[in-house]
Parts: sequence; structure tokens; C-alpha cells
Amino acid sequence: MSRRRQIYEGKAKILYEGPEPGTLIQYFKDDATAFNAQKKGTISGKGVLNNRISEHIFTLLGQIGVPTHFIRRLNMREQLIRQVEIVPIEVVVRNVAAGTLSKRLGIEEGTQLPRTIIEYYYKDDALGDPLIADEHIACFGWASQEEMNDIADMAVRVNDFLCGLFAAIGIRLVDFKLEFGRIWENEYSRIILADEISPDGCRLWDMTTNEKLDKDRFRRDLGGEAEAYQEVARRLGLLPEGDANSVLDLEKHRQKRGK
Amino acid sequence: MSRRRQIYEGKAKILYEGPEPGTLIQYFKDDATAFNAQKKGTISGKGVLNNRISEHIFTLLGQIGVPTHFIRRLNMREQLIRQVEIVPIEVVVRNVAAGTLSKRLGIEEGTQLPRTIIEYYYKDDALGDPLIADEHIACFGWASQEEMNDIADMAVRVNDFLCGLFAAIGIRLVDFKLEFGRIWENEYSRIILADEISPDGCRLWDMTTNEKLDKDRFRRDLGGEAEAYQEVARRLGLLPEGDANSVLDLEKHRQKRGK
Repeated sequence: MSRRRQIYEGKAKILYEGPEPGTLIQYFKDDATAFNAQKKGTISGKGVLNNRISEHIFTLLGQIGVPTHFIRRLNMREQLIRQVEIVPIEVVVRNVAAGTLSKRLGIEEGTQLPRTIIEYYYKDDALGDPLIADEHIACFGWASQEEMNDIADMAVRVNDFLCGLFAAIGIRLVDFKLEFGRIWENEYSRIILADEISPDGCRLWDMTTNEKLDKDRFRRDLGGEAEAYQEVARRLGLLPEGDANSVLDLEKHRQKRGK
Repeated sequence: MSRRRQIYEGKAKILYEGPEPGTLIQYFKDDATAFNAQKKGTISGKGVLNNRISEHIFTLLGQIGVPTHFIRRLNMREQLIRQVEIVPIEVVVRNVAAGTLSKRLGIEEGTQLPRTIIEYYYKDDALGDPLIADEHIACFGWASQEEMNDIADMAVRVNDFLCGLFAAIGIRLVDFKLEFGRIWENEYSRIILADEISPDGCRLWDMTTNEKLDKDRFRRDLGGEAEAYQEVARRLGLLPEGDANSVLDLEKHRQKRGK
């Protein structure tokens, strides 16, 4: 197999040139980072699970009419996606106080917010992804007002859908991060959902026990990261019942066979 | 126990005076009707299941900020609700062609609609609940434009949430009916979700087999109505696993004991 051209390497994913113009291959790594990459590690099998979880959620979102970059999953760790011009804004949707919101505003973690909050952060590792307001986005031209309206509308829809999806499997959707991209058709552009949706970028708490089923297990040294990601995949119906390790075992088996 | 004052008897529910002003008790019957009550029957245990399913869904919708009339479930067949001035419009949200839409527009049942459709029907049994447009609503003053905006916004949110909730348990949300009501606080009114959400007013198809898990089993003489309602409740986590009949058995047992 000829070596594919690498377009970009991020903290948890690599993007390669796709088979056709306008497409990319998104490869999911096991690498985990936190606190703007000050903390580094790996979560065994994470890439395989996030590839599957994100495929599942993006497929369902597509079905309710939220446009996404997802085309199809290619193998255990890769999916084919549409190439987009990434909007340099991380969109965080919060239903329950946690993480930086709790810290910055002094609101106890776990407090149900009176209403859902959408926050925007400027995607810039060197600056530590600072919180920004609509004013900054307009001022620096990171996205047009029309694009921001589309982004906010989609973020609300994704939140409503995911609240339902997770409620049905006993999981409280505390908060999550989205990224959006611009695609061009002739001289017109439109906004579609990009990146991934997985326990890397969501806070997911078991509704009964409040157990964390997301990357906070890694951030806070709670242990059991791989098991938490597997549990989310299992509840979503993506792993055979009672055999949460099989998909990972299968990959190990393939690797041994040199595939 | 003193006889409560009955406020209204519908086809599947009875409303009684509530314990405090501004409240009502909503009692769920086993009676089933179809085709504007030209077909009548009963689905054993339906009232118990719909009470539980509607409680579950309204509670979750309340948690994502959709205001509803639901206060709390009182017993197997009754729930305490807020008294509202019912808006005389049935709001039907459709994701997939079925029922009257397929018949009226000649679109094969099961066809995914290019986008979600919201339809309004004027609630009037004598007229057979005719389809109406925004123009009719404005013309006859059934709701203000502002109220209709709130209703449409809430219908879209409820749809997104329910699509997620049902997708997680292998069910395709084909379409469903909502009703809304007006509550007054001083001289101001606002719109809240009323009535119920249950397999009586939804089309729910198993995602894999396309099996109908809703009132169409009754409308179309398919049999297995009670089992279909139980299956929905079971997948929603409302019946103990492997013992779908237990809640109904419990009720029979109580009835025998004369409670």
C-alpha cells in the first residue's frame, strides 16, 4: 500500500488525503491529552471506539437533517469524511455545570443549569483555546453572522437529539464540544458539522450513580477510562452484549496476523 | 372516597377536578378508537402503560426545558397535571410518510420525507379533525402568531429529542401528534405541552423489522396491540426486563383485592 499524504495531525486524530478530491480520511488514535496537552497518555482501544461511536451519532444526526462531514466508516480506526474549511471555533453546549464553567463562575459541579448555555472558544492551542463572545467572532471575521446563526441552530438541535439518545440509555449529557466546517459549492458556502462526537469531547454521567463515562476519568486520574468508553459504546448497541472487549480483541487479532 | 367531579371525558382519557385550583387529574382508559371513533375497542392494560410512558417522556422533556402540563404520576392510571386552556389544534410532526399523508398525497408509506413536516388539524370531532393551514389559524383566531411560533419551535424540539430517545432503543419515530395548552399568569399567557405522548398518538416502527409498535396494530387489525405497547415501555426501561406483564399483573392483583 502506498503511503498516503498526511494533511494534519491533531491530539487524537490524523487526517489523510482522501480517495477523491474534497474527501479526507480521519484516523482515530488512542492518544489522550488534557489541559491543553500538558497531560498526555493513551487509552487503549479509544480510537476504535470513538470511530464507531462518532459514526453512529453522525449517521443518526444526518437522518434528522443535521448536515455532517461523515461519509462512511472505512475500517476499525478510519472514516471517510468531506473536506471542510474548519471554522476556528469550538462550540461547547452545557446542560449541567461542570469543568471550566464550574471553576470560572463558582457553580457547583452537577448543578442543572436554568437553561442550556452555548459557549464559543477560539481554537488556538498557543492561546489555550480562550473563551470568546459573538462580538469577537464578528470583529475578527472568524465566521459570518449568518454562519453563527446556523451553528447555534444546529448546536441546539444536536443537543436535543443527544439528550434523547443518551437519556434512553441512562446517561446524563452534561456538556459536549462541537466543531463546524464550511463547504463550498460554486461560489456559495454552507456550514456542516465536522470533527467527531465521542466520550473524548462529551461529559457523560450515569443517571443513577453519577459515574463519569468520559475523558474526565483520564483528566482526573480516576482510572477505568477504556472500560468507560466501552460502556458508552455497549449502551449505544455498538458492542455485542456481555462481550465488551470483542471488537478490541478482534483488532488485536488482526494486528497479530499482520493486517 | 368522595366522588370527584368529572371535567371532561375523551376517547382515551378522563379529566377530573384536581386537588388544588389550576390542577386536574388525567385518567388513562384502555379504550381505543380509530377513524374518528368509527372503530372502537379496548387494548388491555393500555391506560397503565400510556400513563407510565407519557410520564417518562414529559419528565425528560421538562428536563431539556420544554414546558409541559405534567406535574406527577399519582397511581397506575392517573397523573396530576396543570389545567390549561387547550389550543384547538392537533399538531402532527412527520419524519416518514404514513397514514393520511401517504393516502392524501400518494406517497408510499415508509418513504423518508426530504424534511420534517409539521401539520395542523382543527380539533373538532364533528368535522373529522380537518387539516388546516396557518392562514386558517390566524383567520379564526385559534392561536396568535406568537403562540404558533412557540408551538412550532417546541414541536421541532420535541421531535429532535424523541428521535434520539427512540433511536437509542431501535425504534424509528415515523410521526406523532402533540397538543398544546395556554396557561395564564396574571394577564399574561404562555403555551405549554399538554395531553400525552404514547403509542396511541405516535407511529413507532422497529428499526430492523419495521414492525409497528403503536396504535396502527389496532387500526389495521394486526393483533398484538397490548404486546406492542408493552414492548415500547420495556425498551424505555419502564418494565422490568423479561417480565413485561408484571406491572399489569400487579394491577389485576390489586383489582382482585378490591383496591
